[in-house]
Amino acid sequence: TRNIELAVVAGDGIGTEVVEQGLTVLEAALADSDVKVATTDFDLGARRWHATGETLTDETLAAIKGHDAILLGAIGDPTVPSGVLERGLLLKLRFALDHYVNLRPNKLYEGVASPLANPGDVDFVVVREGTEGPYVGNGGSIRTGTPHEVATEVSLNTAFGVERVVRYAFEKAANRERKHLTLVHKHNVLVNAGHLWRRTVEAVNAEFPEVTTDYLHVDAATIFLVTKPSRFDVIVTDNLFGDIITDEAAAITGGMGLAGSANINPDGTFPSMFEPIHGSAPDIAGQGKADPTATVLSVSMLLDHLGLADEAARIERAVAADLAERGTSVRTTAEVGADLAARVRR
Amino acid sequence: TRNIELAVVAGDGIGTEVVEQGLTVLEAALADSDVKVATTDFDLGARRWHATGETLTDETLAAIKGHDAILLGAIGDPTVPSGVLERGLLLKLRFALDHYVNLRPNKLYEGVASPLANPGDVDFVVVREGTEGPYVGNGGSIRTGTPHEVATEVSLNTAFGVERVVRYAFEKAANRERKHLTLVHKHNVLVNAGHLWRRTVEAVNAEFPEVTTDYLHVDAATIFLVTKPSRFDVIVTDNLFGDIITDEAAAITGGMGLAGSANINPDGTFPSMFEPIHGSAPDIAGQGKADPTATVLSVSMLLDHLGLADEAARIERAVAADLAERGTSVRTTAEVGADLAARVRR
Ligand SMILES: CC(C)[C@H](C(=O)O)[C@@H](O)C(=O)O
Ligand SMILES: CC(C)[C@H](C(=O)O)[C@@H](O)C(=O)O
Repeated sequence: TRNIELAVVAGDGIGTEVVEQGLTVLEAALADSDVKVATTDFDLGARRWHATGETLTDETLAAIKGHDAILLGAIGDPTVPSGVLERGLLLKLRFALDHYVNLRPNKLYEGVASPLANPGDVDFVVVREGTEGPYVGNGGSIRTGTPHEVATEVSLNTAFGVERVVRYAFEKAANRERKHLTLVHKHNVLVNAGHLWRRTVEAVNAEFPEVTTDYLHVDAATIFLVTKPSRFDVIVTDNLFGDIITDEAAAITGGMGLAGSANINPDGTFPSMFEPIHGSAPDIAGQGKADPTATVLSVSMLLDHLGLADEAARIERAVAADLAERGTSVRTTAEVGADLAARVRR
Repeated sequence: TRNIELAVVAGDGIGTEVVEQGLTVLEAALADSDVKVATTDFDLGARRWHATGETLTDETLAAIKGHDAILLGAIGDPTVPSGVLERGLLLKLRFALDHYVNLRPNKLYEGVASPLANPGDVDFVVVREGTEGPYVGNGGSIRTGTPHEVATEVSLNTAFGVERVVRYAFEKAANRERKHLTLVHKHNVLVNAGHLWRRTVEAVNAEFPEVTTDYLHVDAATIFLVTKPSRFDVIVTDNLFGDIITDEAAAITGGMGLAGSANINPDGTFPSMFEPIHGSAPDIAGQGKADPTATVLSVSMLLDHLGLADEAARIERAVAADLAERGTSVRTTAEVGADLAARVRR
């Protein structure tokens, strides 16, 4: 028997609802195996903050570190000042656990309607850097709230940080059929950060001669995502550009209800974290309306990361079959979870 | 007779081709009026840089400042290191001439195919800040080219700079039918800059109680641009987010061939600059394939800015009629220019 210790951070809003279904499908996928999952719930997010003023204490972080992986629902609530939970909890987890790869696959499944008239065959993955760039929290302001306020945000980029994520992206690309890597940045304006990224891609390419590469400015990338998304295979990009283009990418492949993601620490020093890329959606929370498919796909990525490739593939096939047959028909959160679990068990 | 001194920076690639047609239509629009335009060509861009190493000298900048307005084609060429012309010429013009409003209208004209299956009625304008944010060029790198490189980019934001562009956006919104303003930023991560923007929008809203506002994170904005672009009326955003979303916006309204823009110094201290938002497109340069419509629409904005609202409207109507009748059928650059000029003359 193999025991997996799973930290569960269901979080805010629809987070709890989708995570419940994610766990149902996880259980179904492991039902016949000798893998056992023990979950620990961490009550983090808006409720905790309101009750205690805490976002993520050192003790909690240490406890989470003791697990093999993390399943996260969604973080954020309008009753909490913007940035408090995002910076103090979600980004703190990504940074403290050195999740330098934020992996976001985008696939237009059969049965799913794209808002694009002619989407073509969309199947690419975005490798978003997760521990650097404009997300480092290195900003400040003076004379705040006065007519003389100056506010800054600093994007920090290191050769160490860029190279490791670029190498990961090349490895991904080398293992895919098309073996193509697109760097997305804005090196004609952000010349310092941009040229570091560019030089790094050129240098690491030497280790992966079988991978072809090209480059797009982030603004041009947003165009191709609507005019020719089939051109993409693997995209590597920085933390902020990755945030932006993965939401657009999710939109063209059927929406936030279908987009899973993995925050990976490839070294294995810390547990990796799996989460739908959607937010806590307070407007529909508690109504059983949220689509748990994104969370279920994140669970598939979790299993894959833990070396359970067959179980991961079974979940992905279940999602594909479910979408092909039922499309994004109106079912409750629990119904979708039950349908997917049933398919996985078969 | 009124004399307009127009500085023309045709620039690189297709820039010269589209500007030629822009000027043809400008002439047609003023044919019956007592407004005379005197143009001065400024040979700037890749050719000049290769010949002299210069991007924009103080003398040239001073000469340009002596004009009433600037018509710009496109800047940039693969033979010039990335950033040299963008930072040294295009952005230098925008910053030196204090073009703090970068106005980018987006309208889905009848006859134009959108890549979206159900675009709806799209008609909004993006007010992009033009002199601050991550575009200030305040970055650097140490140990460049070594494994210990650190590269930074600093986003600088001031109450002064944010407030003036936000006020401009409110004025725009107040003069439109829907009177709605959407702030696009990422204040849950870029908390310092983001909260300055947010507080400023709240404060200036008091002066424009008739304008309703909402807020979208930039990632969410990229979603709505493909799922429900009709929701937007006026968007106000920072320099980098504006760059990104206006390309996506152009893509959903028929592409870069149709997207004009204005870099405005509302104070009138310096000449404003009008340019298509597309680049120099070296791949199709010199082939008469470029669509000059974006430049023609920029010329319309130029006339409007100079107080020639009727002439501006005539050009816009000509474009609308041309698109409604011919769509984006395959015509040469010169044919489109001639067709539009003929319609304007009628
Ligand atoms: C909630 C927010 C901090 C987060 C991000 O910006 O990374 C989210 O948008 C995402 O993409 O996971
Ligand atoms: C060429 C580049 C510097 C420019 C920008 O980033 O502003 C362009 O993309 C634009 O949108 O006008």
